[in-house]
Amino acid sequence: MKNEAITSRDVDFAKWYTDVVKAAKLCDYSNVKGCMVIEPNGYAIWEKMQSVIDAMFKESGHQNVYMPLLIPESLLQKEGELIDGFAPEVAWVTHGGDKELEERLCVRPTSETLFSDYYSSTVKSYRDLPKKFNQWCSVMRWEKTTKPFLRSREFLWQEGHTVHATSEDAEAETRLMLEIYKKFFEEYLAIPVITGRKTDKEKFAGAEYSLTVEALMYNGIALQSGTSHYFGQKFAKAYDITFTNKDNELEYAYQTSWGVTTRMIGALIMVHSDDYGLVLPPKIAPTQVVIVPIGNVSEEVDKVYKELKDKGISVTVDDSNKSPGFKFKESEVNGIPVRIEIGERDLGEGVITVARRDTHEKMKISLDTDITSYVISLMDEIQNNLYNTAKDRRDKMTYEVETKEEIRDIVSNHPGFIIADWCGDVKCEESLKEIGGLKSRCILENVKPKNKCVCCGKKAKHRVVWGIQY
Amino acid sequence: MKNEAITSRDVDFAKWYTDVVKAAKLCDYSNVKGCMVIEPNGYAIWEKMQSVIDAMFKESGHQNVYMPLLIPESLLQKEGELIDGFAPEVAWVTHGGDKELEERLCVRPTSETLFSDYYSSTVKSYRDLPKKFNQWCSVMRWEKTTKPFLRSREFLWQEGHTVHATSEDAEAETRLMLEIYKKFFEEYLAIPVITGRKTDKEKFAGAEYSLTVEALMYNGIALQSGTSHYFGQKFAKAYDITFTNKDNELEYAYQTSWGVTTRMIGALIMVHSDDYGLVLPPKIAPTQVVIVPIGNVSEEVDKVYKELKDKGISVTVDDSNKSPGFKFKESEVNGIPVRIEIGERDLGEGVITVARRDTHEKMKISLDTDITSYVISLMDEIQNNLYNTAKDRRDKMTYEVETKEEIRDIVSNHPGFIIADWCGDVKCEESLKEIGGLKSRCILENVKPKNKCVCCGKKAKHRVVWGIQY
Repeated sequence: MKNEAITSRDVDFAKWYTDVVKAAKLCDYSNVKGCMVIEPNGYAIWEKMQSVIDAMFKESGHQNVYMPLLIPESLLQKEGELIDGFAPEVAWVTHGGDKELEERLCVRPTSETLFSDYYSSTVKSYRDLPKKFNQWCSVMRWEKTTKPFLRSREFLWQEGHTVHATSEDAEAETRLMLEIYKKFFEEYLAIPVITGRKTDKEKFAGAEYSLTVEALMYNGIALQSGTSHYFGQKFAKAYDITFTNKDNELEYAYQTSWGVTTRMIGALIMVHSDDYGLVLPPKIAPTQVVIVPIGNVSEEVDKVYKELKDKGISVTVDDSNKSPGFKFKESEVNGIPVRIEIGERDLGEGVITVARRDTHEKMKISLDTDITSYVISLMDEIQNNLYNTAKDRRDKMTYEVETKEEIRDIVSNHPGFIIADWCGDVKCEESLKEIGGLKSRCILENVKPKNKCVCCGKKAKHRVVWGIQY
Repeated sequence: MKNEAITSRDVDFAKWYTDVVKAAKLCDYSNVKGCMVIEPNGYAIWEKMQSVIDAMFKESGHQNVYMPLLIPESLLQKEGELIDGFAPEVAWVTHGGDKELEERLCVRPTSETLFSDYYSSTVKSYRDLPKKFNQWCSVMRWEKTTKPFLRSREFLWQEGHTVHATSEDAEAETRLMLEIYKKFFEEYLAIPVITGRKTDKEKFAGAEYSLTVEALMYNGIALQSGTSHYFGQKFAKAYDITFTNKDNELEYAYQTSWGVTTRMIGALIMVHSDDYGLVLPPKIAPTQVVIVPIGNVSEEVDKVYKELKDKGISVTVDDSNKSPGFKFKESEVNGIPVRIEIGERDLGEGVITVARRDTHEKMKISLDTDITSYVISLMDEIQNNLYNTAKDRRDKMTYEVETKEEIRDIVSNHPGFIIADWCGDVKCEESLKEIGGLKSRCILENVKPKNKCVCCGKKAKHRVVWGIQY
């Protein structure tokens, strides 16, 4: 049933979003301005995301480490572009206890500097390379306006930092991680993404280039969802990371970094969820199945519970004192993909009821059915349906255009991904910002422009995806 | 073979400790004073610890959350004892970007304040209780002297914070978590612990009482290894956490907190490790078995590897270009419990060699042996042997005394756990500090004193364990 605590998505999207966050108990505002409390339901999603993608990292040869939270100002300043990019938005520690520090330290906004400093003292020879490290931690950026999961002063993320003996290896790593992110978004989060290269204006401060996965939300707003950066030797030169190569020559090393954040929880909400609350793809749902007993049915409940659990399905029984109707509603607001209602009357008729969260369909299943196989294939169906629905919507909201007029039209009616060719001049890129804050999302790679630059009408260099961003 | 990079444990224990940390690549000093870089080998141990104990937390009904990193000064100050305890050792954030903050924020040294603030706004009725939350995060305490894993400005930990409707429930929780820590130390880390209650002088700032698990290191120095605190209504009153109880009366809630830290890695080293490097109990070793191939033996290596892996044993093959001798040494310094050497010559004789890390024994095993069962039972044996060795040593270094003279004698010869009765007067407790910094470790519970107070000779109230601490 429609949840009265949730504003309709089509009436006020922003309000709907915060209503879902609150109703599903994902996070709460804290008394620390711009910082959130991630509540059990939200954190459980993050843990599930972590477990899946961390396994993908390890499978591809990465190791987890932990670097300090604080970065001395002098260390941060070694790479000029990075400090320019981050200085306006870092939090500074100036006192330890009662004592003023000799040098102030910033709370890490990202850790290229610390990893580089570490690599500089530990990498000596090509035999020490590659080093493919990752860390799970919180970072802090002193944002002015914040929105739960999407933009906050503190957020959780993983940051991979690797160092390699050749540019080829480092570039391959940059691409590999982009592919891992794409796979994670599409196969687990059921969110279709566009991948490509950021323009120079939009790339990470200090990167040679940045690759990105871009997703489109229900309301046509774009979300930069994960990035993978190639640094070449930039940081190696700033932090003096040299090694003896196979020809016994001293050479600067090649680096990458890549990250995804708790923002992915925001993407899950804004792509799949509805007016009933959260919708979670089965592959990322902390609880995949909830069983709601109605009446005196504990024997059948125990049997179904055990069967599902034995097959590795994450299942709970809601045996609280609440009414069945209340439980149904709660399972919906929490986004549990499959609900099994086991009732006395149904059992008398030899059936149980299975409800799917995505379409709200209810199916009566004969007790003779192999319930585990049924649930597994239903979860597959839900996973695919969520992906296909998101993809159809994304595709419908992706517009190929040739003129600024068309862009104005789209942005003022219903934004989305706008594909338009571009000459490569940053002035043209900036001029499009006037249209509702439009920015380049990414340059499509291995795709040739078909038209002239959408801005100046000169020869186009790139096919670019544009969008309004969060 | 003896590792020349490691000072002998009996020659210089402090040097031996840092040598092992370095040789096993557990952590590295960073350019951030007092903060460490936890390297892959160290972090993998932490991840294994996390996975085991986090499952124990969840099994006992706890949920993970994430609270902000920064605490506004006014929020920290609400509970007087807490701020007095922590103010001298917190790091203060005073600037966000270029702007001075209106109120300074401290980097969390512990999060009672934030959890209490959250509970204050979310707990309304006894139906909302209990809330049993935990978080995994880093905390910061501006220590002056630091030592890898044992004492550093930043460390990783878990902090559980629970809120209950009755003092009975909260006290039961405090005890439950102490038991979980004890089980984790003894069954997984193979470290015997003494449990008890901290004296008022040594309890956590703001607690009604603190329970502790105390371990004894190889050199007789005590390590406070985990604590569980009962707060009664102290924080509830300071942070206004009230709820409507079953009698429809407004009442302050009852709270607990409990934590263990990366310091446990230090304990693992100082209890089990030796002059060859790290020694890890099989139940906590990230890699339990390494297979070293010697010659052209890939078929047998693959077979053994697959068999062990299929049984859920964490196994790797060291197929690098290094010499077998180098690999043996490396497996020892890294503390891998079991090494399987598969050599051409051995295979010709129908055997493989199995080496155990704890005793350095090498066994020739017939190829007819069920290798998986053999390894599983060997790992059990290693786990038990490590525990028993540690317990025998601890017991031998536990002294029951009646006089200060005896204490002086023990501390100047070889410290350990000293059991002596105490009248309960803090002056007596403090006077013992003159003996090499001796402090109370804990009051033994449900144990009656046998003698007079070891200090003043008056009637004793408590049987107390004393020790020199890290």
